[in-house]
Amino acid sequence: MAVYTDVSDEALQQFLTLYDIGDLTSCKGIAEGVENSNFLLGTDQGQFILTLYEKRVDVDDLPFFLGLMDHLAAKGLACPIPIHDKSGGTLNRLEGRPAAIISFLNGMWVKRPHVEHCTMVGQALAELHKDGQDFAIVRPNNLDQQSWRPLFEQSRSRANEVRKGLAQTIDAELEFLEENWPADLPSGVIHADMFPDNVFFLNNRFSGLIDFYFACNEMLAYDLAICLNAWCFERDNAFNVTKARALIEGYSSVRPLTPEELNALPVLARGAAMRFLLTRLHDWLRVPPGALVVPKNPLEYMKKLGFHMDVDSVAAYGIDV
Amino acid sequence: MAVYTDVSDEALQQFLTLYDIGDLTSCKGIAEGVENSNFLLGTDQGQFILTLYEKRVDVDDLPFFLGLMDHLAAKGLACPIPIHDKSGGTLNRLEGRPAAIISFLNGMWVKRPHVEHCTMVGQALAELHKDGQDFAIVRPNNLDQQSWRPLFEQSRSRANEVRKGLAQTIDAELEFLEENWPADLPSGVIHADMFPDNVFFLNNRFSGLIDFYFACNEMLAYDLAICLNAWCFERDNAFNVTKARALIEGYSSVRPLTPEELNALPVLARGAAMRFLLTRLHDWLRVPPGALVVPKNPLEYMKKLGFHMDVDSVAAYGIDV
Repeated sequence: MAVYTDVSDEALQQFLTLYDIGDLTSCKGIAEGVENSNFLLGTDQGQFILTLYEKRVDVDDLPFFLGLMDHLAAKGLACPIPIHDKSGGTLNRLEGRPAAIISFLNGMWVKRPHVEHCTMVGQALAELHKDGQDFAIVRPNNLDQQSWRPLFEQSRSRANEVRKGLAQTIDAELEFLEENWPADLPSGVIHADMFPDNVFFLNNRFSGLIDFYFACNEMLAYDLAICLNAWCFERDNAFNVTKARALIEGYSSVRPLTPEELNALPVLARGAAMRFLLTRLHDWLRVPPGALVVPKNPLEYMKKLGFHMDVDSVAAYGIDV
Repeated sequence: MAVYTDVSDEALQQFLTLYDIGDLTSCKGIAEGVENSNFLLGTDQGQFILTLYEKRVDVDDLPFFLGLMDHLAAKGLACPIPIHDKSGGTLNRLEGRPAAIISFLNGMWVKRPHVEHCTMVGQALAELHKDGQDFAIVRPNNLDQQSWRPLFEQSRSRANEVRKGLAQTIDAELEFLEENWPADLPSGVIHADMFPDNVFFLNNRFSGLIDFYFACNEMLAYDLAICLNAWCFERDNAFNVTKARALIEGYSSVRPLTPEELNALPVLARGAAMRFLLTRLHDWLRVPPGALVVPKNPLEYMKKLGFHMDVDSVAAYGIDV
């Protein structure tokens, strides 16, 4: 739950004169999102989301994120559309922060996804990958495989506070990933954070994707591996192979995976688990005093990593080889 | 910021079949309110607020709160209207909690109230007091003057952790209030929590009152004293006599104050400051681990109390005597 920056009435009114979205009738902080401050604005023209970008977002990346939403929406993907101000821009400042207004997307995220949701998530992810192919701006993945060891160095000395032997397990796995990380797979724009709370459904149909603030250029199949971890484990961390098959088949129905991508899925899933294990470990060990957000337990991702370490081939994900 | 209870998709869908408010199109947790979990629901019929009542609210009080909103709205006061379910009730259960849906009120609270806002707040408070006169249900004020000493007993031993000598100051003041607390002033239904975040304005006009979950039967002028403290001090805790005069004159323009009420205002303001000082002190000393809400500093109310302790008469609030 997150509203980090208070917005004064005067500053908000002044900010809204930049736009042509009607007269403000309501403004409520939203108890969702971890990185930024989000407000639901009501005007006589409808509803909008106001986002103030907080410190963890690099202002230089905002043209990529906002431009990508514009690009994908123009291609027909259901995602928020940045509202252009009277001079055509999408990025302004409010209360000392970069700020943007985006369109409101109907729908809700599902807290307990079913198999059918996984099919639709796979389809939507593949649509995003296809639609992103001709997006002009490039943003490197600053959480890519090469970043993991330096990231772990910031937590290694305290990793065993979280679980005995964790540091040694991660060290060995990082070595495995360094030796086996694939190259030359098809790449393009990935979402990189397509967790259930970033995918909306309405009446059990996919209704849209939100939160493009980790999007970057990366191997496309790595995005599918992130979804495998985010969508195909049950609450007790048991792997659900039916959901995995649905996710991968949904994806393939829109953008067929190459044999190389399929073969690489187990190692990509290990890497994807490592990436979230490491960022969660980092945040877990550094909860600021008075934190408004409860950090996510890194061990959930250690368990997922452990599952993939035992996987021999993509057959374990329900796919015939 | 507060969403204490997660609501599953299935439970919410089931809950909404009780009502006739259309098909759900969105549901977002609201980062406001301290006591309960609040969600903004969108349906094809409009917007609604879903409230799950958390532990601090006594379920036996809910018929009073919901009935009062119904009563006041019927009298024409701008406040949320409880949505009646298909069998006519306004209170149901969701995720193991008492839950209600109320209408959405346009408007925003003002973070830096001006003098004109204080006038309108006084008027609205007096309207509420008049409209509440014939409300049939009675709810005693469980934070009344007699409750303060037992409440303080729960914090006395640690009060001086907050400020040296605080326990002695409070003890002496409680004694003063016990000796000087008025009786026989006009009483009725009061809001009892009319802080700026519970009063909405739209285009600088009053648009509505929310959050009746402290409402009770009490001396009416005590409610005005609560507003004096909540609306008429600046951020540096300096008293703004112009705002106080505006508040009291706004109130009197709708419901004239008796001479006894005017004379009692200074002691009522001391009592109102004591009540919030004590609840804040209580919460300040008991922040639960992983708390999502930053407690409010009790010393703000010690400073306000100190101001009123130096007041001789209501003239200090800008009122001619």
